[in-house]
Amino acid sequence: MTPYETVSYEPGVVRLLDQTQLPARITTLHCTTVQHVIDAIVRLSVRGAPAIGVTAAYGTALASDVSGGDRTAIEAHMRNLRTARPTAVNLGWALDRMQVVLNDTQADPTAALRAEAHRIHEEDRALCERLGAHGASLLPEGAVVMTHCNTGALATGGIGTAFAALLTAHRQGKNISVIANETRPLQQGARLTMWELQQHGIPATLVCDGAAGWTMLKKNVSAVIVGSDRVAANGDVANKIGTYPVAVLAARHGIPFYVSIPYSTLDMTVPTGADIPIEERAAEEVTAVQGHAVAPEGTQAYNPAFDITPADLVTAIVTERGIMRPPYPAAFAASYPGG
Amino acid sequence: MTPYETVSYEPGVVRLLDQTQLPARITTLHCTTVQHVIDAIVRLSVRGAPAIGVTAAYGTALASDVSGGDRTAIEAHMRNLRTARPTAVNLGWALDRMQVVLNDTQADPTAALRAEAHRIHEEDRALCERLGAHGASLLPEGAVVMTHCNTGALATGGIGTAFAALLTAHRQGKNISVIANETRPLQQGARLTMWELQQHGIPATLVCDGAAGWTMLKKNVSAVIVGSDRVAANGDVANKIGTYPVAVLAARHGIPFYVSIPYSTLDMTVPTGADIPIEERAAEEVTAVQGHAVAPEGTQAYNPAFDITPADLVTAIVTERGIMRPPYPAAFAASYPGG
Repeated sequence: MTPYETVSYEPGVVRLLDQTQLPARITTLHCTTVQHVIDAIVRLSVRGAPAIGVTAAYGTALASDVSGGDRTAIEAHMRNLRTARPTAVNLGWALDRMQVVLNDTQADPTAALRAEAHRIHEEDRALCERLGAHGASLLPEGAVVMTHCNTGALATGGIGTAFAALLTAHRQGKNISVIANETRPLQQGARLTMWELQQHGIPATLVCDGAAGWTMLKKNVSAVIVGSDRVAANGDVANKIGTYPVAVLAARHGIPFYVSIPYSTLDMTVPTGADIPIEERAAEEVTAVQGHAVAPEGTQAYNPAFDITPADLVTAIVTERGIMRPPYPAAFAASYPGG
Repeated sequence: MTPYETVSYEPGVVRLLDQTQLPARITTLHCTTVQHVIDAIVRLSVRGAPAIGVTAAYGTALASDVSGGDRTAIEAHMRNLRTARPTAVNLGWALDRMQVVLNDTQADPTAALRAEAHRIHEEDRALCERLGAHGASLLPEGAVVMTHCNTGALATGGIGTAFAALLTAHRQGKNISVIANETRPLQQGARLTMWELQQHGIPATLVCDGAAGWTMLKKNVSAVIVGSDRVAANGDVANKIGTYPVAVLAARHGIPFYVSIPYSTLDMTVPTGADIPIEERAAEEVTAVQGHAVAPEGTQAYNPAFDITPADLVTAIVTERGIMRPPYPAAFAASYPGG
């Protein structure tokens, strides 16, 4: 359990902790239309692939609530939900599950969609716990662990993905401390991860992204653990912009680089990272910080939201099914249900 | 020449472009007392070691102007100037030169001090032009050049150090474009380098520091060029935090990594980068941007101002004397006057 709730639902309303307001204000959005939910996803009030998946599932239940179970309306809403964040594989995955339930239900699908959305959320909670247990097993006593972006309860339906390893190791009394990269442009590391670490009382230090290399050297970083929005069939990892440099620096410093993801983040339909679409976001995220300009007017900026970390830089991939090591195609094949 | 003047002087007034106001406002400070000049240095209205040196020289000429050439008054002003930024090497160096002139002058020293200050400025201008010519020779037609921090006219008495290479290549019609890393925490890349590039009409794109790796790949970066605050005898380079990751990424992508410095930046008294002291600055530079908090209250941050790029990652070092390549100890030895 966490001391705050990222996503919740009851008939007629999806409630989202507005992450754009953190850490200054703890505000809950009450979304009573599917468009509210979509807007919240687009403007990153809710972010993190698993949390987006849970939100999309609840959004589909909401679509049924507000349309009185009208299938045409629900499917139109689902199409709109699907386009809210192109890189987040969990979004499409959750919607596919909701679609199966919709297809399998003869009468008013509302109750079945609500039940499936709650099930998706519950499954995510349980898998976060398993990610935490597997991930923590990789972290030695006294580890100094660097992480990038936010992968905690704010990004998932449970205690997080990579963050779950930190929290679980902390709860096991392993005396770990965390280095959080601030993660420009949107500073999820500074705003969200530092906030979550504080909520749990985990010792933590914030650094600028450009300080990651020097910090590895000077603070004796023992491991890096991050999440991912999509992992390709060859093990290439799409994650928040700035992850790839951290992986390159970890390799140079001989520091293990771990990726912790729900198994559903593995996307066997994309052969390599080069096949993963990378969302480009508005220049204003770079040229301004929280609405305050930091660059001259008219500045052109390049703002890719993600980068690809090649599989050869990834020491291990943690899923709820266990810890996989290179070569990843073989590890993935062995991990298929019944495989 | 640049379309803006960082430092200038005429009898009775030192004019400084107020860099704390950039890029929002272009404000010139008219300093008619030495205390005005000192205040401007202390609050970083003028920054960059060469620019501070030129400012201190003009401040000494101003001391003579306002005191009617009174030696005791001038020397008291010089002592105050010297303490404005105790760590800025060029400040003491410029004041030492002014002191020699003062000692060598029998009557009213005003004219001699003015002439020496103008000479210090002229020498820096000429040095920057030579850095520009040598640096530009390394940049091919159509080059996409990444740079970090600010090394332009705003930091020097001329067209800059690393920036001089960009400007010179642009003026040679080489059709270059620039990728500027924003350079957290103080965002000199976003605030100052982007502004200077705009003033000269050089095509430029701003990226977050964490996007440097992905940008190298996606924007076909052809070279990196940066400045340095100190280069050790083995060629290790101290520069603004975030430089080292850029160098590591450049090496991985097979992109040449150049450092452009006044010859006086070579410090043969420090054997390696490990011997260069690294200033740690206030956590508030990381936890807030322009006074706006970006992390929860009580956040602990690690804020090294510089990092060390090992010599093995440096493709070439440009000084006003020419281009030096590894092994640097031999190159440095060969470059001594008469060596």
